[in-house]
Amino acid sequence: MDLHVIAEAVRARTSLPFTDRDAERILAAILTSEDIWRIIDLSDVPVMALCQALREMGKAGWLEFAGERIRLTPEGRGLIQGAGIAPALELRCPRCGGRGVELGPVAPIAEKFREIAKSRPEAIQDYDQGYVTEESTLYRIAFLWARGDLAGKELLVLGDDDLVSLAAALTGAPKRVVMLDIDERLVGFVREVARGEGLQVEALQHDLREPLPAGLLSAFDTFFCDPTESLRGFLAFAGRGISALKGPGGAGYMGLTRREASLSKWRAIQRELLERGAVLTDLRDDFHDYVNWPYIETMRSWEHLPVKRVPGRDEPWYRSALIRIELVEAPKVANERLEGDIFTDPEAATT
Amino acid sequence: MDLHVIAEAVRARTSLPFTDRDAERILAAILTSEDIWRIIDLSDVPVMALCQALREMGKAGWLEFAGERIRLTPEGRGLIQGAGIAPALELRCPRCGGRGVELGPVAPIAEKFREIAKSRPEAIQDYDQGYVTEESTLYRIAFLWARGDLAGKELLVLGDDDLVSLAAALTGAPKRVVMLDIDERLVGFVREVARGEGLQVEALQHDLREPLPAGLLSAFDTFFCDPTESLRGFLAFAGRGISALKGPGGAGYMGLTRREASLSKWRAIQRELLERGAVLTDLRDDFHDYVNWPYIETMRSWEHLPVKRVPGRDEPWYRSALIRIELVEAPKVANERLEGDIFTDPEAATT
Repeated sequence: MDLHVIAEAVRARTSLPFTDRDAERILAAILTSEDIWRIIDLSDVPVMALCQALREMGKAGWLEFAGERIRLTPEGRGLIQGAGIAPALELRCPRCGGRGVELGPVAPIAEKFREIAKSRPEAIQDYDQGYVTEESTLYRIAFLWARGDLAGKELLVLGDDDLVSLAAALTGAPKRVVMLDIDERLVGFVREVARGEGLQVEALQHDLREPLPAGLLSAFDTFFCDPTESLRGFLAFAGRGISALKGPGGAGYMGLTRREASLSKWRAIQRELLERGAVLTDLRDDFHDYVNWPYIETMRSWEHLPVKRVPGRDEPWYRSALIRIELVEAPKVANERLEGDIFTDPEAATT
Repeated sequence: MDLHVIAEAVRARTSLPFTDRDAERILAAILTSEDIWRIIDLSDVPVMALCQALREMGKAGWLEFAGERIRLTPEGRGLIQGAGIAPALELRCPRCGGRGVELGPVAPIAEKFREIAKSRPEAIQDYDQGYVTEESTLYRIAFLWARGDLAGKELLVLGDDDLVSLAAALTGAPKRVVMLDIDERLVGFVREVARGEGLQVEALQHDLREPLPAGLLSAFDTFFCDPTESLRGFLAFAGRGISALKGPGGAGYMGLTRREASLSKWRAIQRELLERGAVLTDLRDDFHDYVNWPYIETMRSWEHLPVKRVPGRDEPWYRSALIRIELVEAPKVANERLEGDIFTDPEAATT
């Protein structure tokens, strides 16, 4: 019994991409923590495949599930020693949270933004919502600023439960800020805050499955979106963003997670982004920490977890990378209507 | 006269990729500094194209070259104001140097490594050498460790004027460390240090234009290389690394700069890496700072600089990104001999 057998079993039972290396990453994580959420976080293996792998490792006698803990058996420890697997190690810089940037000129608006965010609409499952911490949003704005994509620029935010539009507008740096969201609660909230604070934000209710309104096409310097993680959904949202850019030199930002996207899916996404005329200029993993949403016990992966514990609201395990692209060619994206469910695919875990 | 006219002139006179956005980045940098090396660093525009753009902006009456300084004229300031260009802003975290990681378990070997590096062979122009700061090498090792690519792993370093092999071996974490270099001075230095310090490093003299020795094919978990920046040279070095990996789950690290590679070249490189079976998992810009090499006044771009000043040895302006790839499929790379000059292409500035 070795990693390869586990990996084959996971692939056979789930049809999900899963490598020997994924099995190794899970064991490395278990060497560091017995807690399911830390194991998910440290291993960076998509949750649905990870759940199956834990079960296979349990069946193989490597793990035991003791109440809320996941423990290595002597057999499991022997396997790890034989394979030379080292404990997972986090070396995140404590000052910047691993993001590499300072808040700089964004720092003065941090308190105001946190105050505003206190009365934000709660995340709901209908639209696959789940927002990042206020700190993550503030660092995003700093990152855009440092890349020359904020000050004096026209910014479009596609889907905005993270309140990026408000944080951007609070800095006073952008030339224009437009946000689109399907959720009327969010559109109403952003409008109300903007009115109260005297901020220039245009908030529009829009379903991104529909084509972008003509007035928003080829009209922006920068877009931001944190798409749903299905391959089709991700590419649809990113495509809308790309078609909103003025042309070469325009920049796009996206959040992309490992929790619901295998590296095979990451690769498919990257190939398509390049195909559409863009280059990746930055890819900073674990840039975004998510606040745990209230529907955790009804999310798709909950019943698959081998041990169950409801994580605290501010106990991040769901993280995502920040990707920046820049157009080097005229974009190749069709502004067409998308039919059907764009939220679910086999790796979806939190829908 | 606007950015677009400058961009067209640069493209027409140099045949190099250059966008309106590149012209904007140069002006944003000049708003922040009058020094040529800071402008190169802040603008992230390839040096050869940047030199031409500065000349065009001078001809247009936007800039004046005063001794060692580059200054905006009133006309230049007017243009910038009209276009709404904001000053370039660096928000690099001062603790981690923008890298996002802590040295952690690498910290205890830092002093020893710096001591060893004091007697390293100096960079020579023949092989397009130019090494990163010792700090950059140490952070690289920490990054590999945090990604699970160091401890218990077999590591191949392709071209090693940065002394990655010695830093890795000093930690005692890898299972095996092999370094290849064309430069006998470096191979001898690494062998001598390894013998003196009792480190397990296999150092082999090898020209990467030649196929990899059969014993090194499909034999490693991780490779590291900081290739020459020509498109052909970069892909050749990266391809050797990929063919040395055991298979899916194997990881590769590369340095890639903006100084001698346009975003168009970055895109071509990324497309090819994906094509070969890999995904990009990390892309951290400005991870590596380079020590200024002794041949700066004979490098290709020197005569093109509109103002000339020899930068201090520890005054970094040449930086590069750290890219991590992981194989998700069996690699598609031919282990063939490469003929001719792999160092120069139109964007080469420091060869």
